[in-house]
Amino acid sequence: MSETSDAYAHLIDLRRDLHRHPEPAWLEFYTTARIVEEIERIGVDELFVGREVLGRERSSVPDDEELARWFELAAGSGADADTLARIEGGYTGAVAVLNKGDGPTVGLRVDIDALPREESDDAEHAPAAEGFRSTTGAMHACGHDAHATMGIGVIEAVKDSDFSGTLKVFFQPAEEVIAGGGPLAESGHLDDLDYLLAVHVGLDHPTGEVVAAVDGFLAVSHFGATFEGEPAHAGGNPSKGKNAIQAAATAIQNLYAIPRHEDGATRVNAGVIRGGTASNIIAEESVIEGEVRGETTELMEYMRERAEGVLESAAEMHRCSVDVDTEGYAPSAESDEELGAIVAEVARDVGGVDSVLDRDELGGSEDATFLMRRVQENGGLACYVGVGTDHPGGHHTATFDVDEESIRIGVEVLAGAIREIARQRPQAGA
Amino acid sequence: MSETSDAYAHLIDLRRDLHRHPEPAWLEFYTTARIVEEIERIGVDELFVGREVLGRERSSVPDDEELARWFELAAGSGADADTLARIEGGYTGAVAVLNKGDGPTVGLRVDIDALPREESDDAEHAPAAEGFRSTTGAMHACGHDAHATMGIGVIEAVKDSDFSGTLKVFFQPAEEVIAGGGPLAESGHLDDLDYLLAVHVGLDHPTGEVVAAVDGFLAVSHFGATFEGEPAHAGGNPSKGKNAIQAAATAIQNLYAIPRHEDGATRVNAGVIRGGTASNIIAEESVIEGEVRGETTELMEYMRERAEGVLESAAEMHRCSVDVDTEGYAPSAESDEELGAIVAEVARDVGGVDSVLDRDELGGSEDATFLMRRVQENGGLACYVGVGTDHPGGHHTATFDVDEESIRIGVEVLAGAIREIARQRPQAGA
Amino acid sequence: MSETSDAYAHLIDLRRDLHRHPEPAWLEFYTTARIVEEIERIGVDELFVGREVLGRERSSVPDDEELARWFELAAGSGADADTLARIEGGYTGAVAVLNKGDGPTVGLRVDIDALPREESDDAEHAPAAEGFRSTTGAMHACGHDAHATMGIGVIEAVKDSDFSGTLKVFFQPAEEVIAGGGPLAESGHLDDLDYLLAVHVGLDHPTGEVVAAVDGFLAVSHFGATFEGEPAHAGGNPSKGKNAIQAAATAIQNLYAIPRHEDGATRVNAGVIRGGTASNIIAEESVIEGEVRGETTELMEYMRERAEGVLESAAEMHRCSVDVDTEGYAPSAESDEELGAIVAEVARDVGGVDSVLDRDELGGSEDATFLMRRVQENGGLACYVGVGTDHPGGHHTATFDVDEESIRIGVEVLAGAIREIARQRPQAGA
Amino acid sequence: MSETSDAYAHLIDLRRDLHRHPEPAWLEFYTTARIVEEIERIGVDELFVGREVLGRERSSVPDDEELARWFELAAGSGADADTLARIEGGYTGAVAVLNKGDGPTVGLRVDIDALPREESDDAEHAPAAEGFRSTTGAMHACGHDAHATMGIGVIEAVKDSDFSGTLKVFFQPAEEVIAGGGPLAESGHLDDLDYLLAVHVGLDHPTGEVVAAVDGFLAVSHFGATFEGEPAHAGGNPSKGKNAIQAAATAIQNLYAIPRHEDGATRVNAGVIRGGTASNIIAEESVIEGEVRGETTELMEYMRERAEGVLESAAEMHRCSVDVDTEGYAPSAESDEELGAIVAEVARDVGGVDSVLDRDELGGSEDATFLMRRVQENGGLACYVGVGTDHPGGHHTATFDVDEESIRIGVEVLAGAIREIARQRPQAGA
Repeated sequence: MSETSDAYAHLIDLRRDLHRHPEPAWLEFYTTARIVEEIERIGVDELFVGREVLGRERSSVPDDEELARWFELAAGSGADADTLARIEGGYTGAVAVLNKGDGPTVGLRVDIDALPREESDDAEHAPAAEGFRSTTGAMHACGHDAHATMGIGVIEAVKDSDFSGTLKVFFQPAEEVIAGGGPLAESGHLDDLDYLLAVHVGLDHPTGEVVAAVDGFLAVSHFGATFEGEPAHAGGNPSKGKNAIQAAATAIQNLYAIPRHEDGATRVNAGVIRGGTASNIIAEESVIEGEVRGETTELMEYMRERAEGVLESAAEMHRCSVDVDTEGYAPSAESDEELGAIVAEVARDVGGVDSVLDRDELGGSEDATFLMRRVQENGGLACYVGVGTDHPGGHHTATFDVDEESIRIGVEVLAGAIREIARQRPQAGA
Repeated sequence: MSETSDAYAHLIDLRRDLHRHPEPAWLEFYTTARIVEEIERIGVDELFVGREVLGRERSSVPDDEELARWFELAAGSGADADTLARIEGGYTGAVAVLNKGDGPTVGLRVDIDALPREESDDAEHAPAAEGFRSTTGAMHACGHDAHATMGIGVIEAVKDSDFSGTLKVFFQPAEEVIAGGGPLAESGHLDDLDYLLAVHVGLDHPTGEVVAAVDGFLAVSHFGATFEGEPAHAGGNPSKGKNAIQAAATAIQNLYAIPRHEDGATRVNAGVIRGGTASNIIAEESVIEGEVRGETTELMEYMRERAEGVLESAAEMHRCSVDVDTEGYAPSAESDEELGAIVAEVARDVGGVDSVLDRDELGGSEDATFLMRRVQENGGLACYVGVGTDHPGGHHTATFDVDEESIRIGVEVLAGAIREIARQRPQAGA
Repeated sequence: MSETSDAYAHLIDLRRDLHRHPEPAWLEFYTTARIVEEIERIGVDELFVGREVLGRERSSVPDDEELARWFELAAGSGADADTLARIEGGYTGAVAVLNKGDGPTVGLRVDIDALPREESDDAEHAPAAEGFRSTTGAMHACGHDAHATMGIGVIEAVKDSDFSGTLKVFFQPAEEVIAGGGPLAESGHLDDLDYLLAVHVGLDHPTGEVVAAVDGFLAVSHFGATFEGEPAHAGGNPSKGKNAIQAAATAIQNLYAIPRHEDGATRVNAGVIRGGTASNIIAEESVIEGEVRGETTELMEYMRERAEGVLESAAEMHRCSVDVDTEGYAPSAESDEELGAIVAEVARDVGGVDSVLDRDELGGSEDATFLMRRVQENGGLACYVGVGTDHPGGHHTATFDVDEESIRIGVEVLAGAIREIARQRPQAGA
Repeated sequence: MSETSDAYAHLIDLRRDLHRHPEPAWLEFYTTARIVEEIERIGVDELFVGREVLGRERSSVPDDEELARWFELAAGSGADADTLARIEGGYTGAVAVLNKGDGPTVGLRVDIDALPREESDDAEHAPAAEGFRSTTGAMHACGHDAHATMGIGVIEAVKDSDFSGTLKVFFQPAEEVIAGGGPLAESGHLDDLDYLLAVHVGLDHPTGEVVAAVDGFLAVSHFGATFEGEPAHAGGNPSKGKNAIQAAATAIQNLYAIPRHEDGATRVNAGVIRGGTASNIIAEESVIEGEVRGETTELMEYMRERAEGVLESAAEMHRCSVDVDTEGYAPSAESDEELGAIVAEVARDVGGVDSVLDRDELGGSEDATFLMRRVQENGGLACYVGVGTDHPGGHHTATFDVDEESIRIGVEVLAGAIREIARQRPQAGA
């Protein structure tokens, strides 16, 4: 699609550069620096970085060694030293503000972090074939490289447009661990928003399909459970140990067996397990990292309470102790119909869009819900927009990739909707 | 005990140096170099190192990266470059030979590897208090530092004695993963032995107690089980995953529940577990490292067969595959009474020994059994000697330590027994 | 409410008599005889009993001994001998037909069986306090005594009304084990129906509330899994047994842990377990009776397939065999809106009704769905009506009871709807 | 063997009559009556029955309904009414005393109860083929019919012999549930014993082999665990239940996984499980009947304590309560060597005995240990004798049977040993 190639070539380059340098939650050093560089290239009225965009203590922050390692990696990859200095310690993320006269204050939230997993090196995987496969050991397996790129594209498009009002673009860190949304929501930057859009690519929708208003966000709560027992020699003293791996295994079996709930969907996952030091030692320690979800915040709480009971009883059964740390949490939320209607209307006129769905269910979780709720609680409207993209592998898998055409579509839909909001509702925020 | 302090001061220094540089199985680079340095200081007739002491392919060898990392660590700690060159790639261990005229060929086996665990930094833990705590991240938590030291002490003592015959001291690597004994047993170096002694400190016996003949070695088999499933997003596609962590948890619960056997003692341990990449992804892979034991080789085989059945059914239940890799194996073995009687006789006259037990049960496993069986199959006699030591923490725990007085006792008992063997049985090997 | 007391006194008496003689699935001997007696008292045009109302082989039929025991119990309680002779062997249930001139053929389905559980003898439990507590060891803990009574009440009310058309009332056995609906659906008696109503009391709605159209029937499939192993003496030969109870326990843990499904609600329950003969014998046999459900038939099939995999792998893990017998099955179904609208319209005018819900979700299963689908497949309309009743204990618990006022409401709503259907749609079936 | 046929024909008849009327623990009504009949036929000096032979409250007593049912069954089979009157309520068992002048007081203990399991009706199973298969639904699957018969045979043989001293034969009820030995041991009837013999057939020894002194009794403790949760409809209210079957399944998985003990053999078995009422109700109640054993009483206590922890944590995990009832208990015990030597000496001269083992391990449990310990604590000697018998099926299985030739051997060995004891040690009890 030559049109895309020309006007969007620099965005494609940006997306590929971000894809080549994926960084997990709170480690988006290169990513933030690169975004700041683009924002400065475009020129905005205000730019906030680091601690300025986070309103409270962060959770799920990696340890100092990990922070230092990724910081060095970013520095070694050529990230801007001034920006790096502002975000050292993992205070990643940025907020860009365009003041374009009277009119509503409209926000756009994009997330920027990657996942801690290997990327495929298969010849059929485009990033591998075309030379922009991950160089960091992490992977943009959920399209946040495309989201960050769309954020830049939207600033450009709105800046050059007839939009009247204020635009704020939120480049949010640490979505994958459900940790960035909360501190950002409490930063104060959202408190004057009249409207908030958020965006996600893919979600099993092909290129050319747009979901004007995504719903069905599951409330989520992450947990880390650390079982502590007592080591003993497995051959010589089997009765003397307090087996932290047996405790974890009992817990896992029973976590998945927490009864389903008649009021709606629930989820549970023990996503990471580790424990023990040698095959002939009864394990002294084990750790489960997991999560529970619910169709409503209440259902998530039901799961959380039951999960804690399971973890504690499993520890007790094997005479261990357990420390349960609840780290990431996001509530459920709903997109506002009126805002979705504007998005749908705009999307139908964007080139390359052949299908617009008014609503669809996500069935996953997102800490954008913190931001949506914040705006809605202040009387504003919020809408989460899905931009279809052909993705060969599923989200979070090694062969996930985005069709870059969807970046153009996303920019046009979002920038178009932002302009249309200001056109239809010039009074808000005036 | 000032006598010890004087004559044994250099052995205490050696033990502390080894304690400061503990290295896990097949990574005993510094340790081997240091032992070779001591042997060369004493002067022996033959010295074999590296591939020369291993008669077949090794199992449980760490990967190249790990090998390189520990190799560099040893080099950086001042290990002799020539020796390092001979053992690069993890071909660790050494055999020293003293030819002292006609008489029997007597072997002594000591093991030299450490455990992959942190050492206590508690002020009451002597190595921490007295400045020889581990610097490597591993720990001599089973006294092999004392064993290696005794090996050196015995060479010195026998060299300077009236012993007539041949002495071979085997400094065996990789006992903790039950991987060094097999290759050493098949090296040919044992094939002319008339007698073999092996030694272990502690085993819940206090300083001053000697067990002349240890029995009750459990046959053991280590396994690594890798479950492969399919990842999926835990919120959006819970039914699409094939959960390798659920499979592992089901396996662990049922491994420990393998029925006890009426014919004797059995053991099972899932000592290490790891799996999954993120709390919101259904785990694609998980690994269990474990072991089974039996009072006889048959009972161990019973456990192994049942364990494999459990691992396969657990995989199938959760629609995963499992690959089970059996890595370390040792048979059961028995100490010969006649040899034990000589040890007991000698031990009763050693200063500081206040209790000599004719026999005791180990209840653990040891790959010394490969060497004992080899010698016994060739018509020789073998005996495993226990030298008591006050140890504050249990074997394999962070506060394990040896009473250094037991090093002197061990050297005197072993060197004494070797001399007494040659005195009582001069014809053998003649 | 004195009005109820007078005109409905005989129905209350009937309900209490049925409540006193609850009979589980296929054992409704007294119940069927009593219903036939009432139908004959009223007088109808056609009456079908026993094999005449069942179109194919029954499933989940109790064994001969059980059938004989309950048959004798019914006979001893004064059940009519002629009717008993027609239903011997558990061919229970009845269909009554009123031919009242031209007009549509309208069906009403009520179920008549009880649950195999003890009834509370608490003084606050009305049946205990007022002398109509169960005498059989089973219990009407789901209100089918009220349903059967409403069936009788509706025949009376319609017979005496201006209704023009044909009314068929189906007194269906064996709903609780999801076994009666299928054979009744294939009896031929439904094939000329233009409309079908079904009814249930309670469902957490209070007296005075009516749900015009219930939806959300979960498809269900019952299973019986019999594990066969090998017995052995638990002390003398623990390794020789093949433990059918361990197999069942592993299965149960993993049945509840079958992953939730992103497409909608699922359920699983291991409701009954039994196995083994003595504490010192390794169990040779064990049985799980359970069920799976799904919001759609496809989701139920997903659960069924996964459950079978779990049962088979659990058997294999413990070297047992398992035989899985799928006994009761019901599809999902939906109430037709048009018919629900008529019910709602009528209900709003019934005395004592203070709230009419157009729709509500059941969240359980019902083999009425077989009948609803049969009618819908033939081009007819079906609607499942909920009649609220204050019930002190939950459905299926020992303290469940119905507010008898709801029987009057149910009769008036159902009979009213039947008359209104014929009034609004006289052409159908003409 | 015609000799057996003639002199022992009446004993074979007795054994078959008992085999035809097997009765589980505390239900030995027919059995006790039949034994009393035989004792009275022979004529003894004292005969104690019922409450007279039980020194404290019984455990594991069946409920009144069960007691009444078996009582009626015995009455209907022709059991003597006078004896029945003395043992009503399950006070079964008898003690016969022969006073034959000065000399030691020697006891013989035989147990008389059967197992609650079906007997094979296979044509190759001798009792089925020869017409003395069980008629009660229970089965003599452990040879207690032969034991009781030997008791009678020994009274006859000793009465007619030159034995000088006192003989007491204990016909003990309720061995299989480890419930009869304790009350009998405290009855006072053992307090003047100088010697006690006990006997068991089979134990994997063939006909013609005698074990003079059996050891290796595992201490045992039976338990009954009743889980109480809350019922709920499995489709409509899955989150509302407290699932007693899930609790039991979790407990069973973890009971078998209690760590092995380095000090010796342990056992655990969940032998009986039952729970729940219907497949669509979350189970309110479940029951596990099980047992733990240990090579020593301490090891059994270790298992019991761990088992209780598992049961309680499993209940808590599923929000149920659990009531754990420890019903049957027996300590470990050892046979005295001196007494075993006498048995061995006598056995070598008995016709048909071709192999005498001085000692062997049982590997199971027996409440004879209560009696053995009682006698030993009072300064007497005790010995448990094994009499080999060819048994086609294993103990406790449907095809177990005894070679009746072993009854003769048993009587001759036991009566011979009793006479020899008095001959060698006339002073004791004098």
